[in-house]
Amino acid sequence: MEMLVQLGKNAAEAKYELQKLTAERKNQALHAVAQALINQSSLIMKENEKDIARGEEKGMHPGLIDRLRLTSERISGMAEGLKQVADLPDPIGELLETIERPNGLKIEKRRVPMGVIGIIYESRPNVTADAFGLCFKSGNAVILKGGSDAICSNMAITKVIRQALKEEGITENAIQLIESTDREVAKAFMRLKEYVDLLIPRGGAGLIRSVVENSTIPVIETGTGNCHIYVDEFADLKKAVPIIINAKTQRIGVCNACESLVIHEEVKDKLLPSLAAALREHHVEIRGDEKVQQVIECIPATEEDYGTEYLDYIISMKIVSSVEEAIAHVNRYSTRHSEAILTENEENAEKFLDGVDAACVYVNASTRFTDGFEFGFGAEIGISTQKLHARGPMGLRELTSYKYRITGNGQIR
Amino acid sequence: MEMLVQLGKNAAEAKYELQKLTAERKNQALHAVAQALINQSSLIMKENEKDIARGEEKGMHPGLIDRLRLTSERISGMAEGLKQVADLPDPIGELLETIERPNGLKIEKRRVPMGVIGIIYESRPNVTADAFGLCFKSGNAVILKGGSDAICSNMAITKVIRQALKEEGITENAIQLIESTDREVAKAFMRLKEYVDLLIPRGGAGLIRSVVENSTIPVIETGTGNCHIYVDEFADLKKAVPIIINAKTQRIGVCNACESLVIHEEVKDKLLPSLAAALREHHVEIRGDEKVQQVIECIPATEEDYGTEYLDYIISMKIVSSVEEAIAHVNRYSTRHSEAILTENEENAEKFLDGVDAACVYVNASTRFTDGFEFGFGAEIGISTQKLHARGPMGLRELTSYKYRITGNGQIR
Repeated sequence: MEMLVQLGKNAAEAKYELQKLTAERKNQALHAVAQALINQSSLIMKENEKDIARGEEKGMHPGLIDRLRLTSERISGMAEGLKQVADLPDPIGELLETIERPNGLKIEKRRVPMGVIGIIYESRPNVTADAFGLCFKSGNAVILKGGSDAICSNMAITKVIRQALKEEGITENAIQLIESTDREVAKAFMRLKEYVDLLIPRGGAGLIRSVVENSTIPVIETGTGNCHIYVDEFADLKKAVPIIINAKTQRIGVCNACESLVIHEEVKDKLLPSLAAALREHHVEIRGDEKVQQVIECIPATEEDYGTEYLDYIISMKIVSSVEEAIAHVNRYSTRHSEAILTENEENAEKFLDGVDAACVYVNASTRFTDGFEFGFGAEIGISTQKLHARGPMGLRELTSYKYRITGNGQIR
Repeated sequence: MEMLVQLGKNAAEAKYELQKLTAERKNQALHAVAQALINQSSLIMKENEKDIARGEEKGMHPGLIDRLRLTSERISGMAEGLKQVADLPDPIGELLETIERPNGLKIEKRRVPMGVIGIIYESRPNVTADAFGLCFKSGNAVILKGGSDAICSNMAITKVIRQALKEEGITENAIQLIESTDREVAKAFMRLKEYVDLLIPRGGAGLIRSVVENSTIPVIETGTGNCHIYVDEFADLKKAVPIIINAKTQRIGVCNACESLVIHEEVKDKLLPSLAAALREHHVEIRGDEKVQQVIECIPATEEDYGTEYLDYIISMKIVSSVEEAIAHVNRYSTRHSEAILTENEENAEKFLDGVDAACVYVNASTRFTDGFEFGFGAEIGISTQKLHARGPMGLRELTSYKYRITGNGQIR
């Protein structure tokens, strides 16, 4: 644990240097890091091979092996990502508000970096470079704790980034990787409150739960999406099938995929046969309530189905008799991520937009658009499902805080 | 614990009603509640007497008894506070941003209530009405857990507020009080994540630590203030003594009081004798480092002193030889609340404003101004010392979140 405290101290020291960097220096460093990743790609791939070999030995699923694998194309993709972050506007220093008080005090509210950000992730090794790029551009030091499966890859990527920063004359401690894969170290990291200002977990529900349970550092919860689409009685059914097929099947393992349909009883007879045929064409299993079962063949849906984020070729369906009932159903089972209504009726659209408690509420579009790039943020560190600080897709601004700068000439109370 | 879940469900249901209330209805209800508190003040004082009697029986400190006591004047003050909140602009519904995407999606980012806010407090019973007013005006349901010393007073105030809301045709569950004073219930409350969106502790360091350690609900940490004033080599010493005396002694038990001085060696001989005399006049004990001891008589300061929020008539002093050393010292011991530099040198002022990591950084003014009213927010629920979500004084806006409302016409990815 001494090692962790040392990483914390290093980062807390680095943050004072990083917060002062101009946009120009940060962008130049991001380009240098991008070039270094490409120059050192054979080293990175060699280290990646060790992770692959260990994975194959352990009998890891081929799909996961593929996610783990770094090719020179994927490394170029990482480098390209850093260059794109360099192109984004620098959020730091932005004047958010000015207040002049009757006593002559001038109060400026200015955007500042968060300071030190911790990221715990399970995902692909490219997150190492992506997370660094976003934290660095927003003036933060980052401490990373990746998954054990990718440890050699993560170490190699971190080493290359640190070396490139050093050559740019910037503190290497802008990025530090926790090299231990011990779970107890991960837990101790979640309590490194003295040095870390924000902790972001990226991964499955189990990881996120563990962070929420154990962290004393402020956390942004990301990524659980039990997303609904409600087909209203006034829906344009020609739009409904393509939107539902897109939201369910375009990528099944992502948090903004649709998991459940809520359908107004007035349209069920018209919609369900063609929708069921389209879903079956995409190998999607349907679990419906009794009224759905009366129209199409399907597996009976249980209470549990409505609360499940399948991340799979399965969709649940529920028939309702009003937009109010739909809203109540969605609010009951929603993970507050992304929810959609399909309707041509403005009043019902407004009711749904107002009444549904979620980060992103859609009218007549696929839930798949909840994404930093699709929102035009140019980048994304994750999608927040909590209401504190950031909600929905998080880009550079969401990695910042603010500071009040107050100037007086001797004022006392 | 079933009781807690029921409170959680009540609040989660109430939030949907509260988020829809117009500013006019909320303001009318706040005025009605204010009037009810005044009308029912004899009932409230009668219940308050029970708390006072219990406190006296337990041998509670007379100062604490006084804080606990509700007079008709104090109840009028609570009512006045609610009317002031009614006069503030309603933050809900504010359009924060509009994004139009090339694919035709229209994204609106709008301010919405947080939902359900939990507040755990130890302080005076007036917090019950104050917290309700701020949460209600910002469209939130609130669940309160007050200290056991004030339980009868808190129950009476809550009862009056609920009755007044009912008469206004608004859900009583806008405010609910946890009537148990069991510590285990408090801990269970901190884990009521399914229903509560934000938890704010208001009280001493022990309470705040317990909430940070135990809560799975997102927390805003408030109120610990080890605040410094740095007297720069270019300080106007005529301003220094009044500012320091004000920041240290105007109210000693508050988080924005000054606890420690950092003094440039160039000014120590001129400043310290008159400062020490002024501090002694206000019965303030001085704990100084060796260089301070060479100029004035004082108690030697230990390392521990520099890290202590005294909340008492004590001040620590440290001599430095540069603004950089001052910044490093402040950053080492600061609780990130409020820090001040006294200087007429713009460059040093900028260095301090930029380099010190705190919610509020002052030039030539008392740290006592860190306060929602002094900032012109019209109200305050607390002062955040964390960087996530809100930093410094928190008013109505800091009790809100936002929601993305996205309108399309059939867009898919």
